[in-house]
Amino acid sequence: MSFIETASDSEFPIENLPYGIFSTKTNTKKRIGVAIGDYILDLSLVKHFFTGPYLCAKQNVFEQDCLNEFMELPQAAWREARSVLQSILGKEDKRLRDNLELRAKALIPRNEAMMHLPAHIGDYTDFYSSIHHATNVGIMFRGSDNPLLANWKWLPVGYHGRASSIVPSGTNMHRPWGQTKADDAAEPTFCPSKLVDFELEMAFFVGGPPTKLGEVIPIEKASERIFGVVLMNDWSARDIQKWEYVPLGPFLGKSFGTSISPWIVTMDALAPFIVDNVKQDPTPLPYLKHDDPYNFDIKLQVTIRPQNSEVDHVVCNSNFKYMYWTMKQQLSHHTSNGCNIRAGDLMGSGTISGPDEGSFGSMLELSWKGTRTVTVGDQTRKFINDYDEVTLRGWCEGDGYRIGFGECRGKLLPAMKMT
Amino acid sequence: MSFIETASDSEFPIENLPYGIFSTKTNTKKRIGVAIGDYILDLSLVKHFFTGPYLCAKQNVFEQDCLNEFMELPQAAWREARSVLQSILGKEDKRLRDNLELRAKALIPRNEAMMHLPAHIGDYTDFYSSIHHATNVGIMFRGSDNPLLANWKWLPVGYHGRASSIVPSGTNMHRPWGQTKADDAAEPTFCPSKLVDFELEMAFFVGGPPTKLGEVIPIEKASERIFGVVLMNDWSARDIQKWEYVPLGPFLGKSFGTSISPWIVTMDALAPFIVDNVKQDPTPLPYLKHDDPYNFDIKLQVTIRPQNSEVDHVVCNSNFKYMYWTMKQQLSHHTSNGCNIRAGDLMGSGTISGPDEGSFGSMLELSWKGTRTVTVGDQTRKFINDYDEVTLRGWCEGDGYRIGFGECRGKLLPAMKMT
Repeated sequence: MSFIETASDSEFPIENLPYGIFSTKTNTKKRIGVAIGDYILDLSLVKHFFTGPYLCAKQNVFEQDCLNEFMELPQAAWREARSVLQSILGKEDKRLRDNLELRAKALIPRNEAMMHLPAHIGDYTDFYSSIHHATNVGIMFRGSDNPLLANWKWLPVGYHGRASSIVPSGTNMHRPWGQTKADDAAEPTFCPSKLVDFELEMAFFVGGPPTKLGEVIPIEKASERIFGVVLMNDWSARDIQKWEYVPLGPFLGKSFGTSISPWIVTMDALAPFIVDNVKQDPTPLPYLKHDDPYNFDIKLQVTIRPQNSEVDHVVCNSNFKYMYWTMKQQLSHHTSNGCNIRAGDLMGSGTISGPDEGSFGSMLELSWKGTRTVTVGDQTRKFINDYDEVTLRGWCEGDGYRIGFGECRGKLLPAMKMT
Repeated sequence: MSFIETASDSEFPIENLPYGIFSTKTNTKKRIGVAIGDYILDLSLVKHFFTGPYLCAKQNVFEQDCLNEFMELPQAAWREARSVLQSILGKEDKRLRDNLELRAKALIPRNEAMMHLPAHIGDYTDFYSSIHHATNVGIMFRGSDNPLLANWKWLPVGYHGRASSIVPSGTNMHRPWGQTKADDAAEPTFCPSKLVDFELEMAFFVGGPPTKLGEVIPIEKASERIFGVVLMNDWSARDIQKWEYVPLGPFLGKSFGTSISPWIVTMDALAPFIVDNVKQDPTPLPYLKHDDPYNFDIKLQVTIRPQNSEVDHVVCNSNFKYMYWTMKQQLSHHTSNGCNIRAGDLMGSGTISGPDEGSFGSMLELSWKGTRTVTVGDQTRKFINDYDEVTLRGWCEGDGYRIGFGECRGKLLPAMKMT
């Protein structure tokens, strides 16, 4: 228990302690914070407490304006940091609890903070690892006979995404312009996308020292390189994507913006919520095979708030545990060719759909390619309207506590005027 | 003319003045240099000469360990820098010529320097803009009836690539392991790639201030955002690529390494070599249409040097002018959806093949999918062997001078041992 009171339904009890980058009106410098209840602990002001063997000579990592240097330390250093935080925020430890001057400076009300991207993202990769999502897309576009492509169950299919357009929750974005072609049109046109969609995803940040080109992360070591997880909305323009994506994959249909939640929830906070892996048939090749469970029971929800509404209407309830490929498999596969990784690299899950209609993680699936309507309060949708605000939420239900991810919010603004 | 003697066939006369990042054994600090004849001018030691309106308050950009801050300045600043360099390196200007002490420090013999990546590459995009290459690939994989996909002539097809594994010329790399599946095999296997290839490309660095998400670079303004060009070898593992690439595009078949030449040749140095654009039919949509020529006559050559040989054997003679889509079209298209760009972003051309067999820019095309052999001295190849060193070269032939790109070299080492 923390000396800072946290409600039983708080997303940020002492069992969570996610990391983020924040600033305030009175101090616009970006700095590292840890969420605790309704507060943020400013690590730059408490770095002197990190006196363990890994961090005593590295306290400067807590004075940076992004988390990369901290994430670059080995896993043991992350664990040491968590242990210190649980001590100094705990009920029994006097060091912070009884230092009212330090508390007044270092504990900032969360509602006064502005959140930023937690890390400099060197490279961003997105996978396609939910079997329900891949199957749905396969049925819609290729028919129900053989919806999964031949490679899908043999390797975690993925692609390189655009890092520059990843933005923190709360950043609104414009409906993109793009080239699209109707099936019955002779020629394409350039116009605002008519089929903007969300994709419910989670993404993990890579940690540990950078690897060298040619170096592989074996599956047994992969979990040491996974720092923590955020929610991600991989905004997608389906009509742009459809026309552009052969043969090199998604490009401008995705790169107009990708939203992530600002708090990185660590793997140690998520450890109590590990559940059995999804059974993989065929058995993966040895370089991808692991028997220890590394699947996570994280409840996921997507809401849409239409213009002039004050209510977030739920359109999807899914769960991270529906993932077919684990994050360890994704990371080992990614490095299996010798591709080097760096702390701060972000790797997305792909859209997380469950088996039931209500758990589909995109409007493409919920509206089944626009053939049916999705109820949003007293309105209906097939895709996303201008001024709709889409919010992703995620949480784990512990015994008397909750591990929350905060929100991943973003509003779709109308297309820019072209001059 | 420069007071530094440059042979008439030098790649780096005063008309060129490309930028790079170098260090030396006696000074291991990375710094910005300009190639001139057999020397490198260390800009950190001559920054006080940049006293024009754009650079007088920005001389610190020449003290950085990468070119990003300089490239982030507007085009007018790049032109001012070029003008200063042409003065202080010119025969008439005494400031550097007669300052023997400064010359001794600031002019470093090029053969004593080690070259590094010229910039921090935030995002790397690769296009597919040679019509001869796309047609060859289409014929090989889909037959000769309709080799180009429907979108190809309407937009510059491209994809996001991996930035972390871009390396400077001279970096050797290992044959990648990967998952591949023979057509007649029931299941894939994980083994070293058997079909490693080069791809002859050029790539441009983006310059100017970062754009905001949602901001578009109109085609009329695109050239202001193109800083300069390098050679690029987009190493490819054809067998890995073939199995993994549906439906999301190339991934591990490419990301084991991408080599670039270390000297960025500026667009002002290349301006005299502008030639007519390739005729585009159909006419591009208005957002991609420009009538002013922005195509460049740059001769390109690929050589292979087998193990224990001392000779680079030419396997391909091509030319950048074979590009169907111009760099302006690529950049405008890339930002047409509002995707933001940052100075230091790298955008590749895709494999540059010409109309004749000898001008094909990859072994895939030269060996026509392995159906014929390519002569390499007294040996033959279908793809790249272990210890083959592949070198790309490029140059423009001026009136009594030459604008060279230096080399883009890399040797393929055997696959790493898996433990």
